[in-house]
Amino acid sequence: MSRDIRIAPLTVQDFAPFGDVMNCAGVPDKMINAGLCGRFHDRAQLDLDDDGKVGISLFRSELRQLPYTLDMVERHPLGSQAFIPMSMDPFLVIVAADDLIPRAFVTAPGEAINFHRGTWHGVLTPLSGPGLFAVVDRINDGPNLEEHYFETPYRVIS
Amino acid sequence: MSRDIRIAPLTVQDFAPFGDVMNCAGVPDKMINAGLCGRFHDRAQLDLDDDGKVGISLFRSELRQLPYTLDMVERHPLGSQAFIPMSMDPFLVIVAADDLIPRAFVTAPGEAINFHRGTWHGVLTPLSGPGLFAVVDRINDGPNLEEHYFETPYRVIS
Repeated sequence: MSRDIRIAPLTVQDFAPFGDVMNCAGVPDKMINAGLCGRFHDRAQLDLDDDGKVGISLFRSELRQLPYTLDMVERHPLGSQAFIPMSMDPFLVIVAADDLIPRAFVTAPGEAINFHRGTWHGVLTPLSGPGLFAVVDRINDGPNLEEHYFETPYRVIS
Repeated sequence: MSRDIRIAPLTVQDFAPFGDVMNCAGVPDKMINAGLCGRFHDRAQLDLDDDGKVGISLFRSELRQLPYTLDMVERHPLGSQAFIPMSMDPFLVIVAADDLIPRAFVTAPGEAINFHRGTWHGVLTPLSGPGLFAVVDRINDGPNLEEHYFETPYRVIS
């Protein structure tokens, strides 16, 4: 079995089993501020356990390079997790279904994503820019991290 | 009374009565992802009414220019509201205490803000860049908008 994973452009349709793509494609749901601002309303399925509290954190990550060696994926059984880039740089998004076979996507500038609760995903992997993200996820304590290490790492290529 | 408001750099201290400044100043609360990513944890006071549901929306706003004519402020009695820039451009942040005398701040690149519930503030006012923001606020229906129009507009200057 090949260990190479080719990166695909992120699309709403391909990403749907794993999470939400948040972007300003199409018409705003509402114009606000006297017509000067478009609101693309409620674009992420925030989903937490009953005791879960949602919060906003900032992540500042080292940049990654291609080819990228993927040796693990993780998931958060107690809540969804949104990665919102704070720069206009595309970033790499890796996900896997229950078969644990990874898929790799790259965002367009100005796109954010939200992993559905319990979805296997790679860690934050910016490829350019300041590596700065706002993260909306479950912020209280609890067993909210599972990791899966691959026996043989994958190689993510463009 | 002068109607000129001079813009000040945003600081945590000056903004504290109005909301939270979210940035990566100082040491991360936690290093994650094998030491490659700093987590600045839970930096916004999300505060909603009991029936409120928090969500992530995107705002795409027209750019504003200085001097900026401020003719109104608004507030959301049922919930806090975070403005997270999706580009590294500073933006203008206007707030007012109960005296309704506005104060104007400008963010540093890579800074987001969260208005505390019920805080008077100006609408989203990007000065440069794509005008693209993620907004974390109360997303369900309800009487969550109050507006105050000034008899004489203010002039916001650098």
